Amino acid sequence: MTTIADRSAADLADLHARARDAYEAFKARGLKLDMTRGKPSPEQLDLAAGMLGLAGNGDYVTQAGEDARNYGGQQGIAEVRALFTHLLDAPADQIVVGDNSSLAMMHDSIAWALLTGVPGSAKPWSKESDIAFLCPVPGYDRHFALCEAYGIRMIPVPMTGHGPDMDVVEAAVADPAVRGLWCVPKYSNPSGETYSDETVRRLAAMKTAAPDFRLFWDNAYAVHHLTPERVAVANILTLCAEAGNPDRAFVFASTSKITLAGAGLAFFASSPDNVRWYLARASKRTIGPDKLNQLRHVRFLRDGAGLDAHMDAHRALLAPKFAAVEEALSRHLAGTGAAKWTKPDGGYFITVEARDGTATEVVRLAKEAGLALTPAGATSPYGRDPRDSVLRLAPSYPSLKDVTAAAEGIAVCILLASVEAERRVRERNAA
Amino acid sequence: MTTIADRSAADLADLHARARDAYEAFKARGLKLDMTRGKPSPEQLDLAAGMLGLAGNGDYVTQAGEDARNYGGQQGIAEVRALFTHLLDAPADQIVVGDNSSLAMMHDSIAWALLTGVPGSAKPWSKESDIAFLCPVPGYDRHFALCEAYGIRMIPVPMTGHGPDMDVVEAAVADPAVRGLWCVPKYSNPSGETYSDETVRRLAAMKTAAPDFRLFWDNAYAVHHLTPERVAVANILTLCAEAGNPDRAFVFASTSKITLAGAGLAFFASSPDNVRWYLARASKRTIGPDKLNQLRHVRFLRDGAGLDAHMDAHRALLAPKFAAVEEALSRHLAGTGAAKWTKPDGGYFITVEARDGTATEVVRLAKEAGLALTPAGATSPYGRDPRDSVLRLAPSYPSLKDVTAAAEGIAVCILLASVEAERRVRERNAA
Repeated sequence: MTTIADRSAADLADLHARARDAYEAFKARGLKLDMTRGKPSPEQLDLAAGMLGLAGNGDYVTQAGEDARNYGGQQGIAEVRALFTHLLDAPADQIVVGDNSSLAMMHDSIAWALLTGVPGSAKPWSKESDIAFLCPVPGYDRHFALCEAYGIRMIPVPMTGHGPDMDVVEAAVADPAVRGLWCVPKYSNPSGETYSDETVRRLAAMKTAAPDFRLFWDNAYAVHHLTPERVAVANILTLCAEAGNPDRAFVFASTSKITLAGAGLAFFASSPDNVRWYLARASKRTIGPDKLNQLRHVRFLRDGAGLDAHMDAHRALLAPKFAAVEEALSRHLAGTGAAKWTKPDGGYFITVEARDGTATEVVRLAKEAGLALTPAGATSPYGRDPRDSVLRLAPSYPSLKDVTAAAEGIAVCILLASVEAERRVRERNAA
Repeated sequence: MTTIADRSAADLADLHARARDAYEAFKARGLKLDMTRGKPSPEQLDLAAGMLGLAGNGDYVTQAGEDARNYGGQQGIAEVRALFTHLLDAPADQIVVGDNSSLAMMHDSIAWALLTGVPGSAKPWSKESDIAFLCPVPGYDRHFALCEAYGIRMIPVPMTGHGPDMDVVEAAVADPAVRGLWCVPKYSNPSGETYSDETVRRLAAMKTAAPDFRLFWDNAYAVHHLTPERVAVANILTLCAEAGNPDRAFVFASTSKITLAGAGLAFFASSPDNVRWYLARASKRTIGPDKLNQLRHVRFLRDGAGLDAHMDAHRALLAPKFAAVEEALSRHLAGTGAAKWTKPDGGYFITVEARDGTATEVVRLAKEAGLALTPAGATSPYGRDPRDSVLRLAPSYPSLKDVTAAAEGIAVCILLASVEAERRVRERNAA
């Protein structure tokens, strides 16, 4: 196929007519579709149906003989920490179990850093005149929103396909204001890329001007594979310790996209000093987490093999939806030059890099046709994508039928926006 | 009975010998008892046994048709907010449902006030050179620990038997550094007293120098009656609104001592502006609370009448324990002048005011005899009771048999410590 840029005027006009017809046809279907958020589908939640009646009458005693119904157990019960060493790649005594939200544990880590500092801080971060975080772009909008809420300056860092651009990161951390780096190391949100061993090694070993610099290692998709290959990431905690930076990484994960999105467990894993730091602050905040929900998870998933089998069942539901998006994008856009897109091996998103200056228009066109997309810019700090090109597609929640329909619509919108942009450029150049 | 102070030397020596014998006899029983924390007993938790298998397979749809398993629903599902209007004395749309800890909601309110300010703040509280909270004494140690953790200066305020001394409070809030007052308005922790209508009215109407002053209204024992009378407290939100201070009160409560201590629901209730403020910040922290646990509560308690009946069952377990403590204290101490103590109509504590300078010694004597008591000073800011006289007794957790034994031991320790203090005074005076 000839790229849009290489087409003759007549060919371009012809493609424009066909794209507009396809768009109008899609719009005429009067669909109402939503591809905005990385939420599990009802069918995925059904996989955990067996949890809804757990722990069950009389089932409240932990292996250690504690009453899981009562107060206490700040760090989480031993058997649940043992079960999720698999997920966190950390020893059980370096894991803290929270309630249903790893974002909450990230929030609290930041709030406590601002109010009290972290191990190695000279003073609370809120007493510094300037605190900055490095933000890989494209990245996760809720990470960026946390920084924005607390006035933490965000510095964008480009992604490379195997993690953040480490030359940029290593140069940036020479600034002592830089205290953090957001990382989604596996099947990154939204690019789907996985950090290479070399990236992880450099993150662990790099020299930072701030002695209390932290990697916010949000391993949200640790077991969320879309292929039979279970991609692994190098162990950040071990590499940091080996490099003489034992307290550098705060690791986060949750079962929100494993068991139940609103009723999962969240985890914090880190060095012994950081775990002590976290627990000392958490113990001022609460008398302990919901240990019955912890028991529920142990009863249901049982062990690492149970977790893997459960994730295979998720994959069986998710992979066809990703394939449907890939098929529609390929069929409409391959060879046109209108867009590039990711083919992730895991995670919850497909990232489309549309023609510069067209992302907002694609979202607008989609909305007019009854299809909600994540706002353009959402994957950049402050919601500003300087090239206006990145689109984040979240195919998990709608049914396969709806994803298939939505993918068709998205491809058509991208094509139409790109053709119209090309025609405007040519008109400008001719004028 | 002659008071200790009025006894002749011979009578005092005789009482000392009997007290020491009683203490040694208690110690010889080799008991291991714990009266430190206001935890529900296993029998109280058994009252909620029916919750452990809820919501139950397939039971995840709210009245509004939402899927309670998935993300979202920041404010809490409508039926749970409707159910607990009863507890919070607030309309459902002014209630936010949190996870298992009202302390966590208090923590977050303070953290957000420090980091961002509250409605009416000129700047974040952490940017002020001095922030102070008024702390009724005796009070709740975890309230004080929160202030201490974040460098909030604590100003003690005496309790009167019907709430904090309002003359002291009204004078103190003329200082613009004073931004908060801790309140446990009903069956207060630990004195058991309930705020009079006049106290509540004055709190709502008083002039504060700080425009962003807040009452931290921890209604922890709203339905935790120990007598058939269900004591009521005036509605703080209504009175604040009527007095032209609609945003003054942050109201907190939880079901920790209603359903399950570790797996209950927490609540925040306040003015519409404060609720918007809270939700805006909570939505940066998490994608929503555990709504399945909310459904579990609705399925189990059903309605206000179900809640009342459930609390009657708690009362049937708790009232005999409080009576056992009262009986032992009366039998050993009435008329001796060694101590005064509360006879609460609700809540979780009995407060003993022992002879000045003996509380630490009572705790030490008890510990030597195998009986753990809350550390002396715990009910004062910074853990310092200037008179060293207040003891907090928590009879809820041990069995009735153990509470009966512990009460005997406590009474004996108080008596012994008081007699020994009196003998030391007389020896000093004689020297």
